[in-house]
Amino acid sequence: MTQNLETFKNLLAEISDLSGIASVLSWDKETQMPRGGIETRAVQGATLARIIHQKGTASALKELLTQLEPEFAAQESFEGALVRQVRRDFDRKSKLPTEFVAEFSQARARSSNAWQEARGKNDFKTFLPHLEKMFEMAAKAANHYDSSVHPFDALLFDYDPGLKTEDIRGIFADLRSETVPLVKAIAAKGETVDYSILKRHFDIDKQKAFALEVSQAFGYDLNRGRLDPTAHPFAINFSRDDVRMTTRYDPNYLPMAMFGTFHEAGHAMYEQNTGEHLRRTPLARGCWSTVHESQSRLWENLVGRSRAFWQHWFPKLQTYFPESLHDVDAQMMYKLVNRVQPSLIRVEADEITYNLHIMLRFELELAVFEGNLKVSDLPEAWNAKMQDYLGITPPDDARGVMQDVHWSEALFAYFPTYSLGNILSVQLLETARENLGDLNGMFAAGEYAPLLGWLREHVHQHGKTYLPPDLIARATGKPLTAKPYLAYLENKFSDLYGL
Amino acid sequence: MTQNLETFKNLLAEISDLSGIASVLSWDKETQMPRGGIETRAVQGATLARIIHQKGTASALKELLTQLEPEFAAQESFEGALVRQVRRDFDRKSKLPTEFVAEFSQARARSSNAWQEARGKNDFKTFLPHLEKMFEMAAKAANHYDSSVHPFDALLFDYDPGLKTEDIRGIFADLRSETVPLVKAIAAKGETVDYSILKRHFDIDKQKAFALEVSQAFGYDLNRGRLDPTAHPFAINFSRDDVRMTTRYDPNYLPMAMFGTFHEAGHAMYEQNTGEHLRRTPLARGCWSTVHESQSRLWENLVGRSRAFWQHWFPKLQTYFPESLHDVDAQMMYKLVNRVQPSLIRVEADEITYNLHIMLRFELELAVFEGNLKVSDLPEAWNAKMQDYLGITPPDDARGVMQDVHWSEALFAYFPTYSLGNILSVQLLETARENLGDLNGMFAAGEYAPLLGWLREHVHQHGKTYLPPDLIARATGKPLTAKPYLAYLENKFSDLYGL
Repeated sequence: MTQNLETFKNLLAEISDLSGIASVLSWDKETQMPRGGIETRAVQGATLARIIHQKGTASALKELLTQLEPEFAAQESFEGALVRQVRRDFDRKSKLPTEFVAEFSQARARSSNAWQEARGKNDFKTFLPHLEKMFEMAAKAANHYDSSVHPFDALLFDYDPGLKTEDIRGIFADLRSETVPLVKAIAAKGETVDYSILKRHFDIDKQKAFALEVSQAFGYDLNRGRLDPTAHPFAINFSRDDVRMTTRYDPNYLPMAMFGTFHEAGHAMYEQNTGEHLRRTPLARGCWSTVHESQSRLWENLVGRSRAFWQHWFPKLQTYFPESLHDVDAQMMYKLVNRVQPSLIRVEADEITYNLHIMLRFELELAVFEGNLKVSDLPEAWNAKMQDYLGITPPDDARGVMQDVHWSEALFAYFPTYSLGNILSVQLLETARENLGDLNGMFAAGEYAPLLGWLREHVHQHGKTYLPPDLIARATGKPLTAKPYLAYLENKFSDLYGL
Repeated sequence: MTQNLETFKNLLAEISDLSGIASVLSWDKETQMPRGGIETRAVQGATLARIIHQKGTASALKELLTQLEPEFAAQESFEGALVRQVRRDFDRKSKLPTEFVAEFSQARARSSNAWQEARGKNDFKTFLPHLEKMFEMAAKAANHYDSSVHPFDALLFDYDPGLKTEDIRGIFADLRSETVPLVKAIAAKGETVDYSILKRHFDIDKQKAFALEVSQAFGYDLNRGRLDPTAHPFAINFSRDDVRMTTRYDPNYLPMAMFGTFHEAGHAMYEQNTGEHLRRTPLARGCWSTVHESQSRLWENLVGRSRAFWQHWFPKLQTYFPESLHDVDAQMMYKLVNRVQPSLIRVEADEITYNLHIMLRFELELAVFEGNLKVSDLPEAWNAKMQDYLGITPPDDARGVMQDVHWSEALFAYFPTYSLGNILSVQLLETARENLGDLNGMFAAGEYAPLLGWLREHVHQHGKTYLPPDLIARATGKPLTAKPYLAYLENKFSDLYGL
């Protein structure tokens, strides 16, 4: 058995190494690769993906797994978690017929290209057949995975195993009933700050330097990371020792790169702090999407958009941009970066309206999967909900139903994890506060090590050792609950807007 | 048979893809990777190398090869060349016992580290046992490869299959008898230019912009490449569509990055122009070391250090550095970049003394392999030859016997290919001149497309289709000969120094 376990771990280590390498290829493609390399790189990436897939589904691995399960599958040990995770992966992969995977993969690539072109031309009609195909194939995949549950539940498993559609419905109902009136009350107050301040000139090199200074203060280890510019920001890890992030800059808009970097730093610190003992195993990864998003949103919003944060950092920011910020102070900055304003684009939304963007997508996806909405009616349904939730109607589909990449790649059931991440971020922070005391005082002093240490101990180090519901219960003593988050929104924005 | 050929090509394509990926890892390590990633990356690289090795030595590949050889091995076709190259690789790899390869690899890594440390401390004694081990293991490897030939011949096969030690001896004897008197005659003339001009301030960004402008004019395709800074310059290809180069900058020394980039552009253009039909095969690579070096030296020296080149480019260079070059003209620049001056370090040597550095290494390697010199006596022998050939004695071993990385990694028999590359570069250029006419006139007009086109047709496109002697004979109608090179040196430097 010891020999089997050793062989099992070696196989997993090999797959883990190759997956890290695949991420290097992907990072290089987004940040460094000359344009002429695209086609050959795609071929090389496909070869590597095929080898990873072969190794991950090889009968040798399956046999070892079957031999190890009787001893380890129920164990509360590292080996137990490892065996369970490999089983989950293995079963999941083997449920889709090979031809279906190939067909889906090709259709997805075509859909992704079609979306890019259609969005540029604001032409939903040419994208429609691809989007229909994506919904259709995702429904088929759900059926392959588990025909006995709601298709949305079957898909959710990839992003947050343990989470159920009904849980999301419940949480989102609470969130909606809290949020919509709040947005209306704030809108009634009118504009309270001069938002044009954030659209002054901010030198890009200095934006980068400030974003990195703060990220390092948070605890992002630049000795095991770096920051590069890309069209779409992301964090990516080749191992816990090399976790890179990217952001995008606008010289005439300060928040984008700044909060974008704080956000990616949250993801990246998670990956830098998975346990040493998980190295070269499939457990050495953040615990799926909701928990991952809780980390990015925690540093971006709960820390980066807090009053205490700006008490400490505004004077520093001012030394970076003395001209553009000469007439601003910490309190004004705090108000500026928390302005609530219904807007068209999800990724630019403020903390409150953001969740409404998510709910809209969740409800539309569900309606299609449940047969209550035709894909061809999505633009109209989208716009109606935008009017309903946010009081605005997109002037075109490019800024409406076609704004996100997710649907074009059949990433259904993913959106909710963004809002659930928001919710979890507060649940975690409040637990940390109970343990650590005056977090605001620490933030105001620029001290983040206690918070990062708490997160490392209760979240990061475990990687994928536990499923999300288990991890959340262990870290906070409760299942996922929206209450602390609703209270946070209510308190923060009532205060900010004098409601 | 068609089926076998298809399977054979698919296996080679997979290996080729993985090798390209290994190069991405290596480039990233040298140019982008944060320091903390070193160990994990080494593990990931080793995993990939092991998989490449497994696939390259798999019995499936061997069986296919054996089945295909009767039909293809003697064919003058792409398939013929492919079968022959795979056979060469396969036989070469299978000659070293597995345990020997592992032992050699570990000893090499230790030796490389020891060298780095010892050079820093100018401490040959601690490096000596490692260097002895490198010579000893290289001799063993040579014996494994072919115990019936001179060990140096057995090693040469890796860098220039077809080349024999006796050929090098003959060529180098001619080169020595021409070069040593030339160096003395030039030394007798004394300094004729104010070399301090090249040590003025030259902004690094502008150095890069100029080097890239020239490289692109040569024909380096930046859409399939890029230029980054590294400690040691190199060119590397992931495929013909992604060939990157690196260089190093000194803000107070102009020639280093400039000629370094021209040099790497020569290597890189070779790799960018291997035939489309060779894609994803082991033939899609430059034809071993001598031919590769001929391309780098051709663009660096025969073009970049020509009078005609500076007639065209000096005014442009002056617009990049108006202050530092205000009192210089094209003719003076031509003299400056061709100053002959005996010096300690090979990689900084001028066109003439460079070869003496190479001969010295060649002779010392041979003396050790032939049992006429003990490794422990290398420092003394090195210094004696430096005095003999160049009239200078290294003040320490760091700038003497320990200056190059090659020996620390058992790269014996490699050095000669640098000088042979010089020799071949002139042989090729003279043949191109016979075909194309007034090359100097083209250089003076900044036109390089005819030359690159000729090289593409006669050298680049063939990749490893032919062995070097065959390629050289096809391209120039003659075997490798030093005569044109000797005439080139004699003419150029007699003129420059008024001998």
